[in-house]
Amino acid sequence: MADYKAPLRDIRFVLDELLDADQHYASLSGTEEFNQELRDAILEEGAKFSEQTLAPLRQSGDQEGCTWSEEGVTTPSGFADAYQQFVEGGWPGLSMPEQFGGQGLPASVDLVLSELLGQANHAWSMYPGLSAGCRETLIAHGTEQQQQDYLLKMVSGEWTGTMCLTEPQGGSDLSFLRTKAEDNGDGSYAITGTKIFISSGEHDMSENIIHVVLARLPGAPEGTKGISLFIVPKFNVNADGSLGERNPVSCGSLEHKMGIHGNATCVMNFDGAKGYLIGKENEGLKCMFTFMNTARVGTALQGLNHAEVALQGAMAYALDREAGRSLTGPKAADRPADKLIVHADVRRMLLTIRAFSEGNRAFIHYLSQQVDKEHRGSEEQQKEGSAILAFLTPIAKGFMTEVGIEAASHGIQVYGGHGYISEWGMEQNMRDARISTLYEGTTGIQSLDLIGRKIMADGGANFGNFIAMISKDIATMDAEFAEPLQAMVKEWAELAGFIGAQAGKSMDEIGAASVDFLMYSGYVVLAWLWGRMGTLANAKGTDDIFYKGKVATARFYFDKILPRTESHKATIEKGADTLMSLDDSDFEALAAL
Amino acid sequence: MADYKAPLRDIRFVLDELLDADQHYASLSGTEEFNQELRDAILEEGAKFSEQTLAPLRQSGDQEGCTWSEEGVTTPSGFADAYQQFVEGGWPGLSMPEQFGGQGLPASVDLVLSELLGQANHAWSMYPGLSAGCRETLIAHGTEQQQQDYLLKMVSGEWTGTMCLTEPQGGSDLSFLRTKAEDNGDGSYAITGTKIFISSGEHDMSENIIHVVLARLPGAPEGTKGISLFIVPKFNVNADGSLGERNPVSCGSLEHKMGIHGNATCVMNFDGAKGYLIGKENEGLKCMFTFMNTARVGTALQGLNHAEVALQGAMAYALDREAGRSLTGPKAADRPADKLIVHADVRRMLLTIRAFSEGNRAFIHYLSQQVDKEHRGSEEQQKEGSAILAFLTPIAKGFMTEVGIEAASHGIQVYGGHGYISEWGMEQNMRDARISTLYEGTTGIQSLDLIGRKIMADGGANFGNFIAMISKDIATMDAEFAEPLQAMVKEWAELAGFIGAQAGKSMDEIGAASVDFLMYSGYVVLAWLWGRMGTLANAKGTDDIFYKGKVATARFYFDKILPRTESHKATIEKGADTLMSLDDSDFEALAAL
Repeated sequence: MADYKAPLRDIRFVLDELLDADQHYASLSGTEEFNQELRDAILEEGAKFSEQTLAPLRQSGDQEGCTWSEEGVTTPSGFADAYQQFVEGGWPGLSMPEQFGGQGLPASVDLVLSELLGQANHAWSMYPGLSAGCRETLIAHGTEQQQQDYLLKMVSGEWTGTMCLTEPQGGSDLSFLRTKAEDNGDGSYAITGTKIFISSGEHDMSENIIHVVLARLPGAPEGTKGISLFIVPKFNVNADGSLGERNPVSCGSLEHKMGIHGNATCVMNFDGAKGYLIGKENEGLKCMFTFMNTARVGTALQGLNHAEVALQGAMAYALDREAGRSLTGPKAADRPADKLIVHADVRRMLLTIRAFSEGNRAFIHYLSQQVDKEHRGSEEQQKEGSAILAFLTPIAKGFMTEVGIEAASHGIQVYGGHGYISEWGMEQNMRDARISTLYEGTTGIQSLDLIGRKIMADGGANFGNFIAMISKDIATMDAEFAEPLQAMVKEWAELAGFIGAQAGKSMDEIGAASVDFLMYSGYVVLAWLWGRMGTLANAKGTDDIFYKGKVATARFYFDKILPRTESHKATIEKGADTLMSLDDSDFEALAAL
Repeated sequence: MADYKAPLRDIRFVLDELLDADQHYASLSGTEEFNQELRDAILEEGAKFSEQTLAPLRQSGDQEGCTWSEEGVTTPSGFADAYQQFVEGGWPGLSMPEQFGGQGLPASVDLVLSELLGQANHAWSMYPGLSAGCRETLIAHGTEQQQQDYLLKMVSGEWTGTMCLTEPQGGSDLSFLRTKAEDNGDGSYAITGTKIFISSGEHDMSENIIHVVLARLPGAPEGTKGISLFIVPKFNVNADGSLGERNPVSCGSLEHKMGIHGNATCVMNFDGAKGYLIGKENEGLKCMFTFMNTARVGTALQGLNHAEVALQGAMAYALDREAGRSLTGPKAADRPADKLIVHADVRRMLLTIRAFSEGNRAFIHYLSQQVDKEHRGSEEQQKEGSAILAFLTPIAKGFMTEVGIEAASHGIQVYGGHGYISEWGMEQNMRDARISTLYEGTTGIQSLDLIGRKIMADGGANFGNFIAMISKDIATMDAEFAEPLQAMVKEWAELAGFIGAQAGKSMDEIGAASVDFLMYSGYVVLAWLWGRMGTLANAKGTDDIFYKGKVATARFYFDKILPRTESHKATIEKGADTLMSLDDSDFEALAAL
């Protein structure tokens, strides 16, 4: 397996050159002094931890997996030690407010760190990853006392957190939620029910685990309007902050799954466990969206991470392995074969992986600057950041994870038969990647969010603003990128209009077009970023191999990836007819044949 | 996990209605009496064995895997028993010549059986599957004595076979081959070397294993012109046919791999093992193509099988699981949610899987009729069958396996988070499927074979014949299929011409266009078959739900799948420039950054 190497050069390019981090942080409140030197120090240390401590546990963690017993869940060898080092290094509190013991850095820094952690070890990175959503919920909706009781130790990393939403009878559909919360009369509630698919739900890495749990109060309205949010600690916390008695919440079993074996995916049983209401009664869903949005950006990031892992693995192999001859004649006449890299089709796969890895990197760090603006910007910046974030999050989550899986699959393909063999790490990367289009809302759910909530709900106003913004960028791009992109952006708006008009005929037209439209949107967003990167790199001068590679990849993206939009467009224009011509009962009859 | 149900209705449609099996078998020599009643009996019995004996071992075989010890390899519980039943049922000799103890049925019957076996249990089906290639090699190139010594017991199934090609230092590139064969002076050779990726290389299912091995004689020409083919039995065979001493050929270790865990993928060590030359010295590669062609058709079949498994699983779940509401309003107002099947995007995935499963079925059984024609036809039929088979095999192998993996992935996606959990069987299906674009020649290798050997080598003559043949079919199709297909076939020929012209500029243009062209070709071939099926089903009348489903799927294919050709066309037309603009050394420099 190729050793993981943190892609610092490209991260710096994206942050410092493409996204002008100096200017970005200078424009926000409280981050004016967060300069390149400081950022580099964090990058270097984060790279060291990821490369030296986490990456060596990627494969062993997959092979060993997690182990369940009555006493609890044991994570793979080395995982708990690595987490201890992570806590000692002060990493958990990087972007947390100083008032809670954090270092007060902007959220975007956490995302850079998450990139490194997730590339080195997806399964491990989910333990601190889940804590992040839990902490944000407490910051946004917890009382001062709750923050005092639970947040401080999660900021230090001594405690970790989870998000407990899903139940056996309903996945993404929370209307099925049955877990109940009964008032104990002492300010606490008794939480009873079963949750499934709880990532990092139980483990041996921290002394306490804080669960954020969706449940129903007695007499609450049916459906999603009757859901409240509760804190349920694994160990109750005494008034002095010390750990009290064990709360009756436990892991009933671990799921056996395709990948991310190092992460404990738990069935969690709540047997009258003590819980504390967060936010108002029956407003749990609103509170939950705080961490859902964070989780979706965090999952989008995984689409970058699996592409990066595939890139490093496939590049190393293609430059080393000899097989076949260049179609233009031997390149290494003294050897029995040429290296894989000489083959146009191998290059097609490598450049596809690269285009998605580097394109996704630009996308996700652009997004995380919008989070910064939301948190620390002027009123106008906040408004702008929120609007862009709302529009781009479903595209990022849906598109980046889909192409991340594609990239992981190309990573296998470059290796030929060896790609299927575990020792090279490419098959694990694809198994790990495959979860990313499923959890935190499937691609289908993201695509309905995009068309319904993010475009149609405001009559396309926000979508129009985004197009106006990128049109300004396009005006500054080299013609080779600007021209095709301009045409595509126009077509993008027309397609949205077409779908809106179709919806008048039947709402099924939206569902029928949704995923094609989301993917179309993703290709356009990446084209916008590749156009910017290609233009920038061209200006820097292609004598530098880094910029030369960037320009070549930008051109490859426009030539060889962007034409995929043509199929999505044609498919959208065919509408819903052939999807809806069979009745539900026809499908039943067909299945029974 | 959904129980496997042999898709007999659709198999019968393809064989009896689409491909007119009665007429087909009547036109060949020795199969005139192979009527529908006989075929149905075989289908029913094959279905019973596959559903009741093999399918229950699919998941347990994956979880248990194979175990290596000094004494040999143990297959998962139940595998050896199932094989014993298979032998007792007389299945191995179904299509083998009667002179070798077979039942003398046409090869196409074996493919029907292979469909059932492979859908029920991919890993298990590879044990008899590998024997098939080995047997054909002996029939085509073995001496009478070799056939007497080895073939009879392989036809009965008492012994199994393998094909030992790949070595550690070179995968598909056989120029690296080092295994040596030294003349023992007694008609035998001493074979020494290491082979990897040997499927079914060692196991506990049969009393002897016959390896067909590529090796070099001393002084043989370098590269692929100096390769000979040998039989190396696990146990030497005495003159009276009884088993003699153990030959020094053994399994050094098992590969850990993404899927097909129930099949033993072996490193095989030959330590001066006794071997016997098949065919002429240094003509091993020519002999090998006998089983390579069989193996490629057999692997193409897997693209159908994984799609069928995905279809059965995803249909069952979509018809049972409740989640969300139809965008047009509640369909099951008395329930908290509608079934998944109401959602247009879920139907898009289901119909995509169905279009590939049923389309691939038509493709593979059409192909296997060409094999029958090659084996048993008039001179003219032989010529025609061979020509079609040569042209279509790389398309079938490349395209069917690529879309088979896509279908398997949709199978996961329909299940949402549950798709990632092992118990539902969808993630195993994708892990099992992922090998199919790698072994027996990657998609890249198939696509170079298609353009180079199958189109350009004869100046497109055979390609032109194929187009002429399907054009006759198009003339008989309903206009809704005929019109788009006619246009597409014209474009297909133009694209081949374009690539040929580009090749004059640089041979890299062929490599750059190859996979896009192969995929384009696959979509056209499937459109031809879907056009035929849609027309036929329309004529039969859509009051019958089977035909109604067929027509709906045909229309879906034309509307929603066929537009993918537009992207492939656009990508091909962009040529090789952006793939080749970086030097090999640039890639090295980029990897070193």
